[in-house]
Amino acid sequence: MGILLYDLAGAEEDRRFSPFCWRVKMALTHKGLHFDETPWRFTETDRLAFSGQARVPVIVDEPSENCSVGAQTEIVSDSWEIAKYLDATYPGIPLIPEGTEAATFFFKNWVDQTVLPGIAKQVVFDVWRHLGPEDQDYFRSSREKRFGITLEEIDAKASDALPSFQKSLAPMRATLNAYAYLGGPYSEADEPGFMDHIVFGCFAWARGVSEKVLLEKDDPVYAWRERMLDAYGGYARAKPGYNV
Amino acid sequence: MGILLYDLAGAEEDRRFSPFCWRVKMALTHKGLHFDETPWRFTETDRLAFSGQARVPVIVDEPSENCSVGAQTEIVSDSWEIAKYLDATYPGIPLIPEGTEAATFFFKNWVDQTVLPGIAKQVVFDVWRHLGPEDQDYFRSSREKRFGITLEEIDAKASDALPSFQKSLAPMRATLNAYAYLGGPYSEADEPGFMDHIVFGCFAWARGVSEKVLLEKDDPVYAWRERMLDAYGGYARAKPGYNV
Repeated sequence: MGILLYDLAGAEEDRRFSPFCWRVKMALTHKGLHFDETPWRFTETDRLAFSGQARVPVIVDEPSENCSVGAQTEIVSDSWEIAKYLDATYPGIPLIPEGTEAATFFFKNWVDQTVLPGIAKQVVFDVWRHLGPEDQDYFRSSREKRFGITLEEIDAKASDALPSFQKSLAPMRATLNAYAYLGGPYSEADEPGFMDHIVFGCFAWARGVSEKVLLEKDDPVYAWRERMLDAYGGYARAKPGYNV
Repeated sequence: MGILLYDLAGAEEDRRFSPFCWRVKMALTHKGLHFDETPWRFTETDRLAFSGQARVPVIVDEPSENCSVGAQTEIVSDSWEIAKYLDATYPGIPLIPEGTEAATFFFKNWVDQTVLPGIAKQVVFDVWRHLGPEDQDYFRSSREKRFGITLEEIDAKASDALPSFQKSLAPMRATLNAYAYLGGPYSEADEPGFMDHIVFGCFAWARGVSEKVLLEKDDPVYAWRERMLDAYGGYARAKPGYNV
């Protein structure tokens, strides 16, 4: 009964770092929905066969006994599809307020094309260090194929790549100079929303595995990340990670 | 009585190309507000002294005789401030729907930091060609100081710069693959909104002065630009410009 999330784990079962799973965990917490998690590793594709694909996040939403007649178990994958499913099924406290779906999708595309690859260059070797031996082989070969160089070579270039990553955050930084959050359910933008969860997932990914300093303390993005770690009763801050 | 917009003009009085004035004209048209325009040239700073600054757009909104007691003439400059003023003063048909202000401001920052400088490299010399002699001197010296090279040198590099400009539109392109507009007042995003006006202003700027082809015909951004030219009864398409 209830919602079960398949969440990527490393060698340590409680160290969770998938940026896409983090989007879903923040979204579920934002909506006040109770959920259980089951740790999942890259090589456990058999365990996801029921979902029709091989990647997390996947949620299984089983209707409670009190639910209306006709409700059935729903299986949803992909963090964007999960957010839309949650808003449609549990309308209270919206993630993507009415009229903001295209704007939020634009933001997701910007994050996925700018922030995510920028942080990947910083933390991909740190992810590998935190995986169990069976996952390390899969991860190294798939990522080295994608980047065209070894994980150690990517890591050696990380500090040189940091200024351009920080510079790429400029539109987000200018927004957070004027607003506390990027997209909340309220017009004053004084609460986080799914736009915040989308990009916070990237920073939570880094926090889970890497001791590298990605943001200067006087950066408005740093202050926003602190607010996100403290949001929802400090949900994200309480999870295993490196506080840098 | 009514709204008067100070709108940048070139040597030809009816050729209007300021990207920021275009944002305001689309916004006023979107809201169905009648407005008059007065052409303004870069060197006519005296005529804007009443606004406390030296750049367009500026609107002067004079209350009609039927207006409620206490209404007074309002002077508003800066396209973002004008959009917020219009929504606050004339709430019908919102430009920035409730809950989307921070998201729209993020988009404006992305456009101003990515699309605007990308198009500037393409059209800055074409703008100069369309100015009167007195404005040409001001424009050349201020822009050459900003870019650090001559207008002719910028123009000579335009075709080499085009692929990176087109690539920079990727988050917008991915959004317009899934939605007709970037941000409309309706949840299905089937109408344009101020997010569309913000970035359309950049393309209307180029259309006003340049015969360069900025977009391929199979680009979803091209199809969106066509929809924007046709929006509001073909308001933008009816204005002087090069249809490329």
